[in-house]
Amino acid sequence: MKYRVHVRILPRPGLLDPQGQAVEHALATLAFANVGNVHVGKAVDLDVVATSEAEAAKHARAMCDKLLANPVIEDYAVQVEPIS
Amino acid sequence: MKYRVHVRILPRPGLLDPQGQAVEHALATLAFANVGNVHVGKAVDLDVVATSEAEAAKHARAMCDKLLANPVIEDYAVQVEPIS
Repeated sequence: MKYRVHVRILPRPGLLDPQGQAVEHALATLAFANVGNVHVGKAVDLDVVATSEAEAAKHARAMCDKLLANPVIEDYAVQVEPIS
Repeated sequence: MKYRVHVRILPRPGLLDPQGQAVEHALATLAFANVGNVHVGKAVDLDVVATSEAEAAKHARAMCDKLLANPVIEDYAVQVEPIS
């Protein structure tokens, strides 16, 4: 069965996130008040063929550990939805 | 009330996505078979103060239209969750 996997990779809390700070500053300049704690990272979408949703998530986490994310400085979250 | 907003910004379907192709190729090289349709974009997390979840989402979409995304070449999706 085929699954659509959505991966979000963001800098770990407490680490320097200059891109997030730049976006936060730019939003304030554009008069978006009441916005804070901005963090910018990567989004990866991919299709995986797996026997179950849990297996698809397991594959996706292995991809994050080996290639997509840098586990020293980034956290990731995986969401799986069936597509066929 | 405060809401945590998760924004995903990805290249529109049909547009060239060289970064997605590079990741797809790298995953194949790492023996992750059964993976396809890989797209790479941006993830933005931010806190918004708003009166309702719908208003927080509306603010986030306005931020995407004005700053975070390029609507000509990117699509975005907004997820909102209450945090306090």
